[in-house]
Amino acid sequence: MGRIITLTSDFGCADEFVGVMKGVILGLAPGVRIVDLSHQIAAYDVRQAAFLLGSAHRFFQAGTVHLAVVDPGVGSARRIVLVEAGGQLFLAPDNGLLSLVLIEADAARIWQVDNRELFLAEVSATFHGRDILAPVAARLAGGLEPDRVGPPLAPADLVHLTDLLPMIDRRLGVVVGRIEQVDHFGNLITNISGRLLTEIFGPGLTRLKVSCGGREIRGLSTTFSGVATGAVAALVGGRGYLELAVNQGRADWRLAGRAGVPVSVRKD
Amino acid sequence: MGRIITLTSDFGCADEFVGVMKGVILGLAPGVRIVDLSHQIAAYDVRQAAFLLGSAHRFFQAGTVHLAVVDPGVGSARRIVLVEAGGQLFLAPDNGLLSLVLIEADAARIWQVDNRELFLAEVSATFHGRDILAPVAARLAGGLEPDRVGPPLAPADLVHLTDLLPMIDRRLGVVVGRIEQVDHFGNLITNISGRLLTEIFGPGLTRLKVSCGGREIRGLSTTFSGVATGAVAALVGGRGYLELAVNQGRADWRLAGRAGVPVSVRKD
Amino acid sequence: MGRIITLTSDFGCADEFVGVMKGVILGLAPGVRIVDLSHQIAAYDVRQAAFLLGSAHRFFQAGTVHLAVVDPGVGSARRIVLVEAGGQLFLAPDNGLLSLVLIEADAARIWQVDNRELFLAEVSATFHGRDILAPVAARLAGGLEPDRVGPPLAPADLVHLTDLLPMIDRRLGVVVGRIEQVDHFGNLITNISGRLLTEIFGPGLTRLKVSCGGREIRGLSTTFSGVATGAVAALVGGRGYLELAVNQGRADWRLAGRAGVPVSVRKD
Repeated sequence: MGRIITLTSDFGCADEFVGVMKGVILGLAPGVRIVDLSHQIAAYDVRQAAFLLGSAHRFFQAGTVHLAVVDPGVGSARRIVLVEAGGQLFLAPDNGLLSLVLIEADAARIWQVDNRELFLAEVSATFHGRDILAPVAARLAGGLEPDRVGPPLAPADLVHLTDLLPMIDRRLGVVVGRIEQVDHFGNLITNISGRLLTEIFGPGLTRLKVSCGGREIRGLSTTFSGVATGAVAALVGGRGYLELAVNQGRADWRLAGRAGVPVSVRKD
Repeated sequence: MGRIITLTSDFGCADEFVGVMKGVILGLAPGVRIVDLSHQIAAYDVRQAAFLLGSAHRFFQAGTVHLAVVDPGVGSARRIVLVEAGGQLFLAPDNGLLSLVLIEADAARIWQVDNRELFLAEVSATFHGRDILAPVAARLAGGLEPDRVGPPLAPADLVHLTDLLPMIDRRLGVVVGRIEQVDHFGNLITNISGRLLTEIFGPGLTRLKVSCGGREIRGLSTTFSGVATGAVAALVGGRGYLELAVNQGRADWRLAGRAGVPVSVRKD
Repeated sequence: MGRIITLTSDFGCADEFVGVMKGVILGLAPGVRIVDLSHQIAAYDVRQAAFLLGSAHRFFQAGTVHLAVVDPGVGSARRIVLVEAGGQLFLAPDNGLLSLVLIEADAARIWQVDNRELFLAEVSATFHGRDILAPVAARLAGGLEPDRVGPPLAPADLVHLTDLLPMIDRRLGVVVGRIEQVDHFGNLITNISGRLLTEIFGPGLTRLKVSCGGREIRGLSTTFSGVATGAVAALVGGRGYLELAVNQGRADWRLAGRAGVPVSVRKD
């Protein structure tokens, strides 16, 4: 079996954009298996894609090639980069999309993707996903050595998103993060990881108080159904991050939650 | 070629939920082919999923593993079950999702899925689709014997949805069902199967009268285009159930149709 | 590796329609790889599908089978046709869906699909995508000779969409086309190909003036980011056709753009 290539974009599913990328990939790497992570990233929302890919990649095997393209700067001088981390490969525009992958990686090797021999013969100025990222991903999945894509880069050479991680005030004992994603069920997913909560507050997560939108939730639950139907729960969700949820309801409606709203956690 | 795994859920396509399930599956069963049936089931609408899977599975070959997860009770004590029926396997929470599969099956074998060795090493309390159902589906597709997932159950042990089938008054000669699904084209799909109509009324379906929303349709058509453009048609659709449709229009708008609205059929 | 089958339809993704087509295909041709081009074609919009497929197929390898089903006449006497062009196969209802494929092909062979031995045993009157097109596509991908599907047809036998191509007034030096597609980003994609612009006006595309909705754009850009953020750009996009776009904005909102609105190009 060939390797896996995942696709993440803000292309939506109505146009042919995703389909033609798959046509290009399968033409060059017939045996790969392609998995769509999401094509419903909000248009140009690099940060949303960074969080999605930063957590989703952990469920894929070594050797997987992740192609992510949220690319407001397509056609400008922005670079395309390849990152090797944790045995997986990540291809994306150099706009911060791989920031969380890089933060979480123990070590990473990085290259600029500029070897035109690997691209489609004709490269448009508006669709590098199809003309550059897709063929390069296919060749990498087919066994191309990463260092063939172009010259190495240092982490400091890349564009990094700022304010990705929550602020920690150890003296006051408070962690202040924000909502990053409102999921399909209206759950509010923050940038505060369960690992961070344990690190700061110790293992007793039931003794925490979570504040969001003027509301306080006392104690973390372990499941959506751990509170009454319609009640607000705070819990570490499937992504590994603190979420605010309403059991069989929508936390975004209840808490006026949307990306960017602050969420704080302290001892109760 | 590996077996087919189908996926049905209320996860939507914007989040990474479906993609990471596929990552887990392909990591354990590299050769399987994955088919999405729908991830647009209305949130928590187990009944909608039951009807969709109850008809769709008939178009898949023996050996197919159907993974369905509409799961308002995730993290609670609700069970996960495996059903073998008609040479296919069905994995779902024990909440009635497999009710129609079981009704239509001549015989079924059922097991509770509780063998933790088959799950991901770390099982979250909020995403059993990824942590339990996906790895178990992958192992079954890879040849695991069904009875390895856990102890056998009897049909009576399971949760069953009620009122799935239409009421039949043979004395008055009337069948009363309801709309189960408004499809993408606005067609109103009922729970009254064509087979039932033939059983009750005999083969002459043109001599029937269908009532819905205060409107009567006299005679069943065989095609959408069998009535004038814009006219209402009643016909046995691709799912095998009675549908109300408007030729190149939307029956949901015309008839104020939505899930739950009664539909009755009698001789004209 | 098996051949590629692409799918294009107006079925949406909420119902089981696409999934069961894949079930039928994989049951007959286990090794094929299936790529969704789009299932979000507007209901019954044959013209939209014609343009999408007319450009997307160029990114697939020889031998690919394209199955397209936008089919307001399903169940009526309309034919189903198979076209072989450029080493690829195209299956669709005979309603003009393949008009652009045929216009762009140097040569094409055409057959009527009427060999019932290739269909599902039971053919419904409402879902030929599943019962006819899917099994025929699978058999073709499995190596069935195209002339086995039915008798040959001449191009003139087919239904053709009219007004697909822009009008050209060589005396006045003006090309008048129209918007065909508003894409996910709000870009307005016309039916005026870049190749036509070069043929009519020569290679200096910066010296052109594009008019749409009472607005004039002077000079074609090469990239979305070639104009200021929020400014309107005219450029030949990834599809190979003239597009109107707003750098990191929505041209459909700015220019009140929608399918059918005229767009003209002349020398500046």
